[in-house]
Amino acid sequence: MRLHVPTPLRWSDLDAYGHVNNARMLSLLEEARIQAFWMSEETAEHAVGATTAVIDATPGSSTLTLIARQEVEYLAPIPYRRQPLDVELWIGHLGGASIDVSYEVYSPEGISPRELHTRASTTIVLVDAATGRPRRITDVEREAWTPYLEAPLQFRRR
Amino acid sequence: MRLHVPTPLRWSDLDAYGHVNNARMLSLLEEARIQAFWMSEETAEHAVGATTAVIDATPGSSTLTLIARQEVEYLAPIPYRRQPLDVELWIGHLGGASIDVSYEVYSPEGISPRELHTRASTTIVLVDAATGRPRRITDVEREAWTPYLEAPLQFRRR
Amino acid sequence: MRLHVPTPLRWSDLDAYGHVNNARMLSLLEEARIQAFWMSEETAEHAVGATTAVIDATPGSSTLTLIARQEVEYLAPIPYRRQPLDVELWIGHLGGASIDVSYEVYSPEGISPRELHTRASTTIVLVDAATGRPRRITDVEREAWTPYLEAPLQFRRR
Amino acid sequence: MRLHVPTPLRWSDLDAYGHVNNARMLSLLEEARIQAFWMSEETAEHAVGATTAVIDATPGSSTLTLIARQEVEYLAPIPYRRQPLDVELWIGHLGGASIDVSYEVYSPEGISPRELHTRASTTIVLVDAATGRPRRITDVEREAWTPYLEAPLQFRRR
Repeated sequence: MRLHVPTPLRWSDLDAYGHVNNARMLSLLEEARIQAFWMSEETAEHAVGATTAVIDATPGSSTLTLIARQEVEYLAPIPYRRQPLDVELWIGHLGGASIDVSYEVYSPEGISPRELHTRASTTIVLVDAATGRPRRITDVEREAWTPYLEAPLQFRRR
Repeated sequence: MRLHVPTPLRWSDLDAYGHVNNARMLSLLEEARIQAFWMSEETAEHAVGATTAVIDATPGSSTLTLIARQEVEYLAPIPYRRQPLDVELWIGHLGGASIDVSYEVYSPEGISPRELHTRASTTIVLVDAATGRPRRITDVEREAWTPYLEAPLQFRRR
Repeated sequence: MRLHVPTPLRWSDLDAYGHVNNARMLSLLEEARIQAFWMSEETAEHAVGATTAVIDATPGSSTLTLIARQEVEYLAPIPYRRQPLDVELWIGHLGGASIDVSYEVYSPEGISPRELHTRASTTIVLVDAATGRPRRITDVEREAWTPYLEAPLQFRRR
Repeated sequence: MRLHVPTPLRWSDLDAYGHVNNARMLSLLEEARIQAFWMSEETAEHAVGATTAVIDATPGSSTLTLIARQEVEYLAPIPYRRQPLDVELWIGHLGGASIDVSYEVYSPEGISPRELHTRASTTIVLVDAATGRPRRITDVEREAWTPYLEAPLQFRRR
């Protein structure tokens, strides 16, 4: 199952070419991911995913999440629009201590024709805050995330 | 009359102190201002202000808008929240060729108690794209903007 | 006495108008200020100011520095250049618990004619990390900072 | 042959974890790449690479450079330092109309032990500004870039 996360642009996401900057795209994916799966104080109830699927990243939490790897394909430039991008997001792989999140970034809902702008994948490692070492995904987490598990992206240009 | 512009945060707006960065605040104000008063292709109908009040900044438009001055008071640090900040925005002064936009940035709606985080003012000059020189605000623009005219902010620390 | 802080641009500082974005300018001023007066681990010896003038902002330091206020005048747009901007920086006011830093941002050294792009002022409050309350500037700090004290900027558009 | 591009950090590159943000890393790589291989008005003579190897991206140039793909491995978090990162940069592949740039991001020179923080690769497509279509790398460009051609990065986590 994929989550659809409406992800607002800012005019300041544009670079001198007048399109969303390629580096800024990773901030947009980060924000979509946080909206979908991360919990922070006061906000767990707003997560797009089921509450049991969110990662507790409140200060003092026992788990840190580190980005180990990212891969991005830019298919079509993105102009500034007031309406949020439609980011489809799912889990491409559940490892022992890591998660691969896959994304497809589409034009805003209601814009026709629908256009696929960007495809990306992020590998996140769960780290025990106390020891600084990777820690295993728990059974509760695995069960909560399994509904969002789909085949990972196949990148075209490798 | 003040406009209320819901202005979403991003986790990447935080700096190493864990609060919204002071420079990034100006990007948030820019975005609120664009949402309220600026028009771009496909998006005029989404402006928060009346359509007649928006500035046509579509490519090829005959008017450029330049930032001449900004003043910001930071009253209380802003944490990351999923809910958008509540930015109150009005016109503090209508000059011959310039507009002063005033802002008060409040905690998201529904957060209690409501907190005033930031007060700011931006001076924008309308520039003729062809000549590169300031151009006068037209009667039509002046009429459209007048409902949003209120007393400008009085800054505390001057 | 003014400090001259060479402050490198990045291409990503440009916005869709092809000039350094007005919000990003505050990040450039922040960086110039840190290069001039702040100390962090391993780097005190690189400060542009005399070492005794730097603020100890290493983790675990007893002092936090909060931005209370900023004022910026944008006089001329800044293009991307490989050479660093020439930021002149001095202390415009030494209060009981606060410092006003003044800046004039000039074109890179060697570019002729020399152009003044931006004038700005930042009010910084020293805060006791333990109590969260403003703390007085010490005699040692006051003595170290006094050589950099000059008349504050007079802003043109107020 | 690899180019060594000193790439300055900013304090604002840090995120709330106190390390250089993973998205911001792509802006740093972009800047290193521009310093090494891109030409803009007034700045060709400052390029790190031989002048004949730089891409003419001055306004009005007949070639645009589009980012088609990026891949990044984050090996160790990067703290703020005043000294610039040491970015090693080379061409991993010369295609018909595209270039793969490889990067290894090391701790600043003089910091001991030397640490490899990030490995990355960017695919850039040369586009004819007039037609908007990819255009072939010329013989002159190919000859100028060949000295910087080395084996591309082998990513560990694929």
